[in-house]
Amino acid sequence: MTFTGKQLTTQLDADGTLTVQLGDKTWDAPKPGQVLIKVEATPINPSDLGLLFASADTENATYSPGKVVARMPENATRAMKARHGMAMPAGNEAAGTVVAAGEGAEALMGKRVACVPGTAYGTFAYADAAMCMPVGDEVSAEQAASSFVNPMTALGFVETMRLEGFTGIVHAAAASNLGQMLVKICQADKVPLVNIVRSPEQVKILKDLGATHVLDMTEPDFMPKLIDAIAETKAMIGFDPIGGGTLAGQILTAMEAAASRGAAFSRYGSSEAKKVYIYGALDLGPTILNRAFGLTWDLGGWLLTPFMAKAGMEIVGRMRARVASELTTTFASHYKARVSLEDMLSKEAVGAYNARRTGEKYLVLPNG
Amino acid sequence: MTFTGKQLTTQLDADGTLTVQLGDKTWDAPKPGQVLIKVEATPINPSDLGLLFASADTENATYSPGKVVARMPENATRAMKARHGMAMPAGNEAAGTVVAAGEGAEALMGKRVACVPGTAYGTFAYADAAMCMPVGDEVSAEQAASSFVNPMTALGFVETMRLEGFTGIVHAAAASNLGQMLVKICQADKVPLVNIVRSPEQVKILKDLGATHVLDMTEPDFMPKLIDAIAETKAMIGFDPIGGGTLAGQILTAMEAAASRGAAFSRYGSSEAKKVYIYGALDLGPTILNRAFGLTWDLGGWLLTPFMAKAGMEIVGRMRARVASELTTTFASHYKARVSLEDMLSKEAVGAYNARRTGEKYLVLPNG
Repeated sequence: MTFTGKQLTTQLDADGTLTVQLGDKTWDAPKPGQVLIKVEATPINPSDLGLLFASADTENATYSPGKVVARMPENATRAMKARHGMAMPAGNEAAGTVVAAGEGAEALMGKRVACVPGTAYGTFAYADAAMCMPVGDEVSAEQAASSFVNPMTALGFVETMRLEGFTGIVHAAAASNLGQMLVKICQADKVPLVNIVRSPEQVKILKDLGATHVLDMTEPDFMPKLIDAIAETKAMIGFDPIGGGTLAGQILTAMEAAASRGAAFSRYGSSEAKKVYIYGALDLGPTILNRAFGLTWDLGGWLLTPFMAKAGMEIVGRMRARVASELTTTFASHYKARVSLEDMLSKEAVGAYNARRTGEKYLVLPNG
Repeated sequence: MTFTGKQLTTQLDADGTLTVQLGDKTWDAPKPGQVLIKVEATPINPSDLGLLFASADTENATYSPGKVVARMPENATRAMKARHGMAMPAGNEAAGTVVAAGEGAEALMGKRVACVPGTAYGTFAYADAAMCMPVGDEVSAEQAASSFVNPMTALGFVETMRLEGFTGIVHAAAASNLGQMLVKICQADKVPLVNIVRSPEQVKILKDLGATHVLDMTEPDFMPKLIDAIAETKAMIGFDPIGGGTLAGQILTAMEAAASRGAAFSRYGSSEAKKVYIYGALDLGPTILNRAFGLTWDLGGWLLTPFMAKAGMEIVGRMRARVASELTTTFASHYKARVSLEDMLSKEAVGAYNARRTGEKYLVLPNG
């Protein structure tokens, strides 16, 4: 039996032309250990956008039904040399119904599952059966669509904190779906959390969830308030999805100021460990560190897959079980709009979701 | 018995006035476990300058015999609140002759030692006997003056590489005294080393020492050459004393390019660990990261004292023994000028050593 439908691909050519388009595709029977799902709902996450459009000029692109052609800046084109000329499918995660099962995966046949195909922007998608999470009929595809990236990342932050010996977290751009999950996890686990957001509306979103520390970085007294909050919570590990600009450095500066409070002067700064992870690139510009934080500090990249490899099966298993049992509560997601595969490539939709604004996430429904 | 002489201090007041001056001082008998040395030679290291002058405007300062009064920028004054109003002695390391010994340190009486007083810019200085290294009559005070900061730092880089599982080093501003020591250590230990320098003259200095990879960052083909050198040596840990500007990020970018060579495209970059430590601030400006290096990377501060605490007694003991036995070979230092305590505070001297230029280190001879 074969299945036919559409698949979205993104191709960057050596001359800087980026083509994102829908094409016809046929899916054969899945291999052993795999299932084929009919994709019901799949979110557009910032991590998908890095592959779909990267830093291409979508504002001045050419839009036609099911096709976008844009220019990629020269340095980005050069940096992504390894993908030149390849039509790459995209879409990290999805929920759908299993329509065919490979050897050893027969038990999933006909079930609705949350999964991580990597090719979810299509009518159908293959998925690793071991990574599929059956969700039961009372859970909708929309509720199950974002079961992996955000929930596992939010849980991963708390596990990272524990593994590295810290006892409180600073989170930037904290009003996102992921940030709201983190607020709920930290409440349940009694982990002190300092939330940094970018507007009074976002302060309200998190305060309504019961968050204690919510700071608006656009306020003039943001830095003194951040120092106070860190001094109170001892939150010496931070996670920042913005990446560009001065915020990561400001968090380190506030950690240093909080750690130095009442201490004798040291020309080298405090000896207390302070660490910030950049886990996204909402701002593609350079990270600027003013280094007013002594010599005991650390800034690094954080990515879910290597974290899971490092954390090991036991921790990851515990994380997955928690996601499954709290899918419609702690890990509920919110979407601004729902689009078909075709509408996903309209100028209006690309302009909206590619802006990566908090609270404006799109959900794709490939089968209507 | 008491000893009298001069002591240099640096004081920052709340109004931004920085006063660096010589004052009269009397030294009493040392406490148990301490010795008093007559300071013969003490270097001015970049780590001393952070306390002595920090970012004060020494160009427009007022110079009088034995006294410099300068303005500190407002943000730096605020950041160093903990030292306001305190006349702090300075001078990390020195060589001198023990003129008085506290209880338990009698064996050092009359010996020439290398030591780490922290107050070495004076006629005399107390030093922790456990940190004193007797050097024997065949070694001059000048040869022994820089026995701690640079040698232990250079050895610390190699130990850090080993402790963190890396197998090759990238070093920036590599023509410094410290950099020359690192070249010799890496040759002896067969550790691949990529040296980054800032002029053709500095290339020659390191090539004359037998260094294999010496790259001039002012050359137009610096980046492709750096990528090649890292690909060849697998040097995935870097040490940068410059701090400000784009170099630390360029090193990470070159590591990523070397790690990705021949690999399939990943939107998240290579999964190979890559790390750069900033261990100084030759450039006080912001660190600028263009983040063209995926999400598996790490940037941190490196400081000798916490490193030694983490490395433990056995490793530190091995490092110290090596310094003692190779003091006039591997760990030989070079100075541009020798000055008295008074001349150390002349406009000419301050202007020269505070510029922190490679190859222009000053040595202070407090007793002529």
